[in-house]
Amino acid sequence: MTAVQGLDWIGADWGTSNLRVWALDAAGRVLVRAESEDGMGRLDRAGFEPALLRLVGGWLPAEGRTTVVACGMVGSRQGWVEAPYRAVPCTPFGRGPLARPETRDPRLSVHVIPGLRQDSPADVMRGEETQIAGYLVRNPGFDGVICLPGTHTKWALVSAGEVVAFQTFMTGEIFALLTRQSVLRHSTGGAGWDGPAFAEAVSEGLSRPERLAAALFALRAEALLHGLTPDRARARLSGLLIGSELAASRPFWLGQKVAVVGAERVAAAYAAALGQQALTVATAEVEPMTLAGLAAARSRIAEAIA
Amino acid sequence: MTAVQGLDWIGADWGTSNLRVWALDAAGRVLVRAESEDGMGRLDRAGFEPALLRLVGGWLPAEGRTTVVACGMVGSRQGWVEAPYRAVPCTPFGRGPLARPETRDPRLSVHVIPGLRQDSPADVMRGEETQIAGYLVRNPGFDGVICLPGTHTKWALVSAGEVVAFQTFMTGEIFALLTRQSVLRHSTGGAGWDGPAFAEAVSEGLSRPERLAAALFALRAEALLHGLTPDRARARLSGLLIGSELAASRPFWLGQKVAVVGAERVAAAYAAALGQQALTVATAEVEPMTLAGLAAARSRIAEAIA
Repeated sequence: MTAVQGLDWIGADWGTSNLRVWALDAAGRVLVRAESEDGMGRLDRAGFEPALLRLVGGWLPAEGRTTVVACGMVGSRQGWVEAPYRAVPCTPFGRGPLARPETRDPRLSVHVIPGLRQDSPADVMRGEETQIAGYLVRNPGFDGVICLPGTHTKWALVSAGEVVAFQTFMTGEIFALLTRQSVLRHSTGGAGWDGPAFAEAVSEGLSRPERLAAALFALRAEALLHGLTPDRARARLSGLLIGSELAASRPFWLGQKVAVVGAERVAAAYAAALGQQALTVATAEVEPMTLAGLAAARSRIAEAIA
Repeated sequence: MTAVQGLDWIGADWGTSNLRVWALDAAGRVLVRAESEDGMGRLDRAGFEPALLRLVGGWLPAEGRTTVVACGMVGSRQGWVEAPYRAVPCTPFGRGPLARPETRDPRLSVHVIPGLRQDSPADVMRGEETQIAGYLVRNPGFDGVICLPGTHTKWALVSAGEVVAFQTFMTGEIFALLTRQSVLRHSTGGAGWDGPAFAEAVSEGLSRPERLAAALFALRAEALLHGLTPDRARARLSGLLIGSELAASRPFWLGQKVAVVGAERVAAAYAAALGQQALTVATAEVEPMTLAGLAAARSRIAEAIA
């Protein structure tokens, strides 16, 4: 293995299911990226360093310590080192030092970004604060709502550089469970997409969210009795769930400037759903926002050391 | 193996996940019961007869054919023989002959009860029509709503001996997926029950069903930040889901006489939730209703042969 030429630091997004790492130069450009399924969920405390080294061991120069900046569930109580939540309202990042796990390999200097908590209504995030920080770096002075769709979609109200409040929805996880493991898997197996069916279902879910419970099995029955296609059923299910989420998150987005930060397909779905509500929506990909956030954290570490 | 003395016929409730069979005498008394996990979902067409014989092969006398009356997914298109749905409004059972799969074993004479369909809103049931028939045998002249909670809860409006309309809710399956496979499994693992938390959550789910999507992750966050106990979280989740179901099924139960037919714990939960709405609710166990329904189907077969 040969070290990566020009490597200045390493960024890591370490969630429950996946570990993603980037080798970065001093200007924050990506030199190499790698990922594995060594998420927090399958590691005990002693497993984190070997999991990290499996991906980045070959990138490191033999001399000196390379800074690794990590965000996500790696900082939870069951993670590598607990980085206690900071309470909103607050800036996405604090001024204090980051949590530091002990490492056996002398080439590593690991720093873990803490997540955010909201006491009432109770809510937590780990990882999304870094994407929010990155979005604010890229869009200075942004005031409005940032929607971060994913397994657990977060809605964050941002004002004057602070996260004022946020709320989590399990929409992505529920969609995955229903389409992969429930009786609906027989009726929603399509790989395609039906835009009009999605749009109609968003309106239904948003205007009559109380009918969601009744609308789900109807997808199965419509497939059995009336030939509802898998693509259409899948788009309808997604629309019903996102529409219901929009009904419950209305206090966040109503009358606001909204930015959706997410993977391409899911971000497009949320942007389309919000667009139906006559909102102007900006979208941004996750990876550049995560990297901008990690770089901001990295520069604070460098300042603190200097 | 020795045949069961006094065996007159065999009843079978053959669902997606399980096969339950009863050896019955001429008065409909249970002589032996057995069950396996040979549900429709894991069998191909050639697998049904061997699966049945694994349970009842030892019960059968060597001479003559023993009548087996079966309900449930065994009659679906992917089942042993398709028993086409009958369309509501209709009586739970029709007058025509039942579907007959071919059998290789000369000791078997198998009859499969068809399910019910509703064209609009699209819905289907297989198995519950037999429980409804049984409930009507045991409660002649019943007019009102029968709620059959389970993996897929059915609400059926019954009048003058006919199923007028029905609706299916995936509440049981969603509860199982969320408590076993979602992030909530960490917070809802209790075996106990918190009645007041359940009651409060039913009220919340019923009066503000649009908040369901927001209330789910809050269970996880409340556990992390404020020590919500697993028993309380589990009861709250159940209450929120059942409350949301009650909001969507209100047209069925409002102002009606309601009978809940289900397994003890889940029937008690539904009865408690409905009781909060100032309804008088009767409850009945599933097995005796299934057996009464199968016996009614059996007597029609006997009449048709006589």
